[in-house]
Amino acid sequence: MGATGPKQVLREPGEATRRVRFGNVEVGGDFVVIAGPCALENQEQVDQAAHAVKSGGGHALRGGAFKPRTSPYTFQGMGEPGLKLLTEAGRRLRMPVVSEIMDAAQLPTLVEYVDVLQVGARNMQNFSLLRALSKIDRPVLLKRGFGATIDEWILAAEYLLDGGNDQVVLCERGIRSFDNTLRNTLDLAGMAYVKQKVKLPILVDPSHSTGLSWLVTPMALAAAAAGADGLLVEVHPTPETALCDGPQALTPQAFDAMMKGVGAVLAATGRRFADVKPLAAVGGVR
Amino acid sequence: MGATGPKQVLREPGEATRRVRFGNVEVGGDFVVIAGPCALENQEQVDQAAHAVKSGGGHALRGGAFKPRTSPYTFQGMGEPGLKLLTEAGRRLRMPVVSEIMDAAQLPTLVEYVDVLQVGARNMQNFSLLRALSKIDRPVLLKRGFGATIDEWILAAEYLLDGGNDQVVLCERGIRSFDNTLRNTLDLAGMAYVKQKVKLPILVDPSHSTGLSWLVTPMALAAAAAGADGLLVEVHPTPETALCDGPQALTPQAFDAMMKGVGAVLAATGRRFADVKPLAAVGGVR
Amino acid sequence: MGATGPKQVLREPGEATRRVRFGNVEVGGDFVVIAGPCALENQEQVDQAAHAVKSGGGHALRGGAFKPRTSPYTFQGMGEPGLKLLTEAGRRLRMPVVSEIMDAAQLPTLVEYVDVLQVGARNMQNFSLLRALSKIDRPVLLKRGFGATIDEWILAAEYLLDGGNDQVVLCERGIRSFDNTLRNTLDLAGMAYVKQKVKLPILVDPSHSTGLSWLVTPMALAAAAAGADGLLVEVHPTPETALCDGPQALTPQAFDAMMKGVGAVLAATGRRFADVKPLAAVGGVR
Amino acid sequence: MGATGPKQVLREPGEATRRVRFGNVEVGGDFVVIAGPCALENQEQVDQAAHAVKSGGGHALRGGAFKPRTSPYTFQGMGEPGLKLLTEAGRRLRMPVVSEIMDAAQLPTLVEYVDVLQVGARNMQNFSLLRALSKIDRPVLLKRGFGATIDEWILAAEYLLDGGNDQVVLCERGIRSFDNTLRNTLDLAGMAYVKQKVKLPILVDPSHSTGLSWLVTPMALAAAAAGADGLLVEVHPTPETALCDGPQALTPQAFDAMMKGVGAVLAATGRRFADVKPLAAVGGVR
Repeated sequence: MGATGPKQVLREPGEATRRVRFGNVEVGGDFVVIAGPCALENQEQVDQAAHAVKSGGGHALRGGAFKPRTSPYTFQGMGEPGLKLLTEAGRRLRMPVVSEIMDAAQLPTLVEYVDVLQVGARNMQNFSLLRALSKIDRPVLLKRGFGATIDEWILAAEYLLDGGNDQVVLCERGIRSFDNTLRNTLDLAGMAYVKQKVKLPILVDPSHSTGLSWLVTPMALAAAAAGADGLLVEVHPTPETALCDGPQALTPQAFDAMMKGVGAVLAATGRRFADVKPLAAVGGVR
Repeated sequence: MGATGPKQVLREPGEATRRVRFGNVEVGGDFVVIAGPCALENQEQVDQAAHAVKSGGGHALRGGAFKPRTSPYTFQGMGEPGLKLLTEAGRRLRMPVVSEIMDAAQLPTLVEYVDVLQVGARNMQNFSLLRALSKIDRPVLLKRGFGATIDEWILAAEYLLDGGNDQVVLCERGIRSFDNTLRNTLDLAGMAYVKQKVKLPILVDPSHSTGLSWLVTPMALAAAAAGADGLLVEVHPTPETALCDGPQALTPQAFDAMMKGVGAVLAATGRRFADVKPLAAVGGVR
Repeated sequence: MGATGPKQVLREPGEATRRVRFGNVEVGGDFVVIAGPCALENQEQVDQAAHAVKSGGGHALRGGAFKPRTSPYTFQGMGEPGLKLLTEAGRRLRMPVVSEIMDAAQLPTLVEYVDVLQVGARNMQNFSLLRALSKIDRPVLLKRGFGATIDEWILAAEYLLDGGNDQVVLCERGIRSFDNTLRNTLDLAGMAYVKQKVKLPILVDPSHSTGLSWLVTPMALAAAAAGADGLLVEVHPTPETALCDGPQALTPQAFDAMMKGVGAVLAATGRRFADVKPLAAVGGVR
Repeated sequence: MGATGPKQVLREPGEATRRVRFGNVEVGGDFVVIAGPCALENQEQVDQAAHAVKSGGGHALRGGAFKPRTSPYTFQGMGEPGLKLLTEAGRRLRMPVVSEIMDAAQLPTLVEYVDVLQVGARNMQNFSLLRALSKIDRPVLLKRGFGATIDEWILAAEYLLDGGNDQVVLCERGIRSFDNTLRNTLDLAGMAYVKQKVKLPILVDPSHSTGLSWLVTPMALAAAAAGADGLLVEVHPTPETALCDGPQALTPQAFDAMMKGVGAVLAATGRRFADVKPLAAVGGVR
């Protein structure tokens, strides 16, 4: 890509994957699972989801408070009260929390509550947001845009590193293709390609990419087998009542089953789930 | 699309296209051409481009000061000094000006200088930006995302109307397909579909969609023949030295030729270029 | 594309478009319209469609007897009796006829009846069929595959020329993209690109590409404005009863209106419809 | 899909996957690996590849004699002499053989040599070929077209069953998307979806889908983890000299390593490689 290509994200020969730490979790070594509901809805839902994630063996808790929705007439998220619920649940269960930022103006609010700032698919090339996030000392989870090439995704990450933030985790979440049978087309080979070429850790989101809860476990196992550094998965205590993306959410029971399956595949490939580090060693969850 | 579908942008039976006015120009009736360089570079370039647009019969002047670039290592735009050059050139030649906004934080600066705020393809689903633009009294030019369906594009426009801004102009600029021979795949039939279903005026950008200057005129003629309300075209005094997207920019001579061709096609279909209204009638270019 | 790239189909600098003659029609100079029903259904339908095409100013008659259908449970075409109806109607009205070949084994039958052999989108890379067609002295209409790149399309044509048949007409009929609002995405810029790079004449099919009859005329006008050599259009006396693709067929009245519009756009761009040559000059319709 | 939708390929609730037998191999139960060179080149290459497949634990031997090539100027395959080499190697090593048919006219030749007839991506909707194959008593391996939706693929299989041949094995080999970093986009979630909805066994081709040999093993493991019934993999004794698709072929050593990895993943998910049945029990390889 010449002078305008990526300079900092590419993996040098023999270079290890960058480790990105948040709270008592480290991504880029052993396998990490970040799970939780698509949208934060209320205290009970958040608490139940958090409990399900923790007891199933998940490492971090996710949940959206500011939701980028295709239509202005669908649920737009709880906003800051949702973040509060998320953070409290995370603290109680000693899990760091991840939530989406839509806009640099939300940064002061989000950094108060969350350990990892997620950039969603629709904002992958929101360069103003990337520039703002490049200036902070907090990990960023950069999802691939559903219309973005691998090169564009890598270069979006390069914006973060170029600005000074090298705590970047990538996440493949499906791209668009002509076949709309499923919500998106999970580009697992693209993930494996990026895993090899780029030194940043990379997760797979089997929930958004398929849109169907019964495909989440097969794709989670496939992601583990293909070498991903972890998963971003939707878990909801009662998917049938979810305000957002219920059809793709796992129940707590299904999440447990998925985790067992992933663990077995990791073992078969000489890998394992990340340990959760004692909080003393990492300074506690924020 | 039910309760979450578009409520305000759809055309009722028999309803006329919304007229959107800026300066002495009105889009949605007769054919309008907005032209200028991809990126504002310096005074000489801006002045020469503006002169070429005016003398070729263009109605409004475009030019990017804040550029969303795939790589952090390419020219990112002149910023505010570029806007100043653009606005001065527009005033001198009595053309309203259009420039891209990347971020709600740029709004105070941009409204000082430009008549129409362009939302680029990469920000079509930057809902924070759309919400901010929905609150101002200034026309918005909403480009289709290269990975966005027609429904998503329409609903992005709905965000603007839902928030209170009904001065919205759509612009088709090409989508992604598996064939990368050209920069993008111009979805002219999608434009004609939206033109029929939606009451907002719609332009076509034959420059970004093709990426090749010698395809701009054929696609401009096609857009006129297919019923578009106007064009957004890149014109540069010296495309071979352009800092951005030179291969797709028309020279002043080529722009003249394109305008003659478009005029003939409009006449053949019972249409014509918009008149430029006397400034007295419209209160002058800002 | 080096040693394996196209050698014979590319246009040399200054080289004129290849003229392809069938019956009293010549494609590659003035604008030619081939029209008729998607599928041949019965004598009355064929006769009425043929009459509509002729009286509207169409140059050649099309109709499918062997239909490549996605499902084995939909109407598969009349077969040879349909070809007989088509050819008789063509002879009566002095129009050459075009019909699709699905398989080299159909060649002896088809050459008995039709003037132009159409290779459909699904068979564009049926190389056995292409090789068979390269050995005969009869024009071939090669539609672009909906999943085929421009290079693949050009090289499919190269198979025909390489085998000895240079009477090849290309036809853009829409490709697949992630947006399924319309049946396909008409790649009109791709057509204009091929028109410039390749010396073979090229048609546009506004019917299959859009799937909606009310988009056929805008796209036909756009194709004429963009420089296509002609159109392939579906016309049916009663689209609402059609056994195949009714929603995209023009009524005779709509076809008349389309032809008037196309004629005006051609005139505006210094072009015109092809004259129909006296049969004496061409040896009569087969 | 109503009256024109699939009637025979869909899985009834609780219905087991159809077993398809060829020679001493059965697909649809335990995991099966079909491997060999893209194109058959000469005796030494075929023998070495066959030996590599057998000694690595592969179940059946593949190799193309009739090659559908994008350009007429690339190697088109050895034809019948290649089939002879393939079959002899298969017999010697007691592996059934698989080769591609491009055209119904090749059927008499192919049935003389091969155990499974492969329909390639470019011919998935060659309905004449499908109809011919539906009338024979020989398994068919139906690859998904790179531009075909899941519904179209299923309905192509339905053509085979509708005509009387229910010995059908599906194979996902990647589809086209806007991102051309890799050769195709492997639709592994689409495979898992079809696996659930359709009762036919389904393989994954990690070679064509990625185009890069170093991605073959990660995708083979992912396919096994996601529940595929087997693999179709390219193995070549010396990929660097291959006449076709060398960059995606595994060396014998890499094939061994892949097989070990796949075996471990299968075990982790409660599955295993298929046993090779004694020839007496199956009547011998043809």
